[in-house]
Amino acid sequence: MASLGERIGRLFADYGWLLDAERYDEWLELFSETASYQIVPRENVQLGLPAALMWCRNKDMLRDRITTLLEVNEYDIYSARHIIGLPRFDEPVGDIVAVETPFAVYHTDQEGVSRLFGVGAYRSRISCAGNRLLFEANIVQLDSFSVPTLLADPL
Amino acid sequence: MASLGERIGRLFADYGWLLDAERYDEWLELFSETASYQIVPRENVQLGLPAALMWCRNKDMLRDRITTLLEVNEYDIYSARHIIGLPRFDEPVGDIVAVETPFAVYHTDQEGVSRLFGVGAYRSRISCAGNRLLFEANIVQLDSFSVPTLLADPL
Amino acid sequence: MASLGERIGRLFADYGWLLDAERYDEWLELFSETASYQIVPRENVQLGLPAALMWCRNKDMLRDRITTLLEVNEYDIYSARHIIGLPRFDEPVGDIVAVETPFAVYHTDQEGVSRLFGVGAYRSRISCAGNRLLFEANIVQLDSFSVPTLLADPL
Repeated sequence: MASLGERIGRLFADYGWLLDAERYDEWLELFSETASYQIVPRENVQLGLPAALMWCRNKDMLRDRITTLLEVNEYDIYSARHIIGLPRFDEPVGDIVAVETPFAVYHTDQEGVSRLFGVGAYRSRISCAGNRLLFEANIVQLDSFSVPTLLADPL
Repeated sequence: MASLGERIGRLFADYGWLLDAERYDEWLELFSETASYQIVPRENVQLGLPAALMWCRNKDMLRDRITTLLEVNEYDIYSARHIIGLPRFDEPVGDIVAVETPFAVYHTDQEGVSRLFGVGAYRSRISCAGNRLLFEANIVQLDSFSVPTLLADPL
Repeated sequence: MASLGERIGRLFADYGWLLDAERYDEWLELFSETASYQIVPRENVQLGLPAALMWCRNKDMLRDRITTLLEVNEYDIYSARHIIGLPRFDEPVGDIVAVETPFAVYHTDQEGVSRLFGVGAYRSRISCAGNRLLFEANIVQLDSFSVPTLLADPL
């Protein structure tokens, strides 16, 4: 069995890769059925404000959201690339480990021009009860909230 | 002996560091003698097209290519910096492990101004037969194909 | 006990996270009492020149520097985000392990616009004598020396 740190690293490697490859069904499988998912501007996290740019209270809501996005975005106008940094974590409490992980996301348009889309951090609660690690909650704290295509895709 | 995940992480840490330090001889030592190396636009990977921006079918071709580059680029006009994300890998099949790893590369000019050069992912086949991990194949899938200095250096 | 590689990864995850969260007191605790800290342009590292943009010969000097910065920067005008790449390290010599780690730092202004601040690499000497890894020396080699807010914060 790999160490907890290595398993967390592999979970986030899967997370970013599956999003960038637009393999959303497999990405969803990284979440537990009760998992919540939010995208929140950094400012709101710091002020304790609740306003989220995307808020799914469980995996079904997240699945619905993805389905809607896929219908709207029939013609992709850019591809995404996540660069996820080193995860920071504490000892698990019960079956849950709290993890904080920085990220940068780049978008590339159809002419092959890449630009920084935004940076931020995942504040995650990850269940290590089963064979596989699963997100029990993932708050995407987005530093860059001034972005035109903000709600187009999960981060 | 470190775990496979840790050994893969160290291989990619070496890979990026040696490129950025322009220590190409040591970088070449990360490849097996039969290793292939390609730089391919993301679009071509997705469409199954063969057209590569750089294609070396074995280590000798890659060595020749590096030698040529060093002669042409006698005066460096920028330095490079690779930020390599978390590697994603499956269980090895025989002695070969398939690894997918996102990256971002920045260039800094002689005035000290840094810019994003491009993002993409390494699609690698890595041999774990010997004491050291070695690239058996490395496909550099480049999202950003609209770049002026594209062929100047390996990625 | 986690492997040395995992412990180094966690040290750098803490390093970047605590800086971005402006938890400078905790960040200082990652350094030994005798630790030196420097920010040096890449050019000077390559030429062997001593001129540093910031130079603290021990932890007290670094603490003083942080205190001064906090007084000057009473009103934060941007937030920072470190994306730290894969650490590269050799076998420890005595209690000291030499580590080289690439990084990118982004700044986000009050309108939520994020920009690349700079890229570079940490050249670190890390003590593994005690229970926790501690920086014994950290040289921040900065590729991007043409930056207006250069001395505003530690990197």
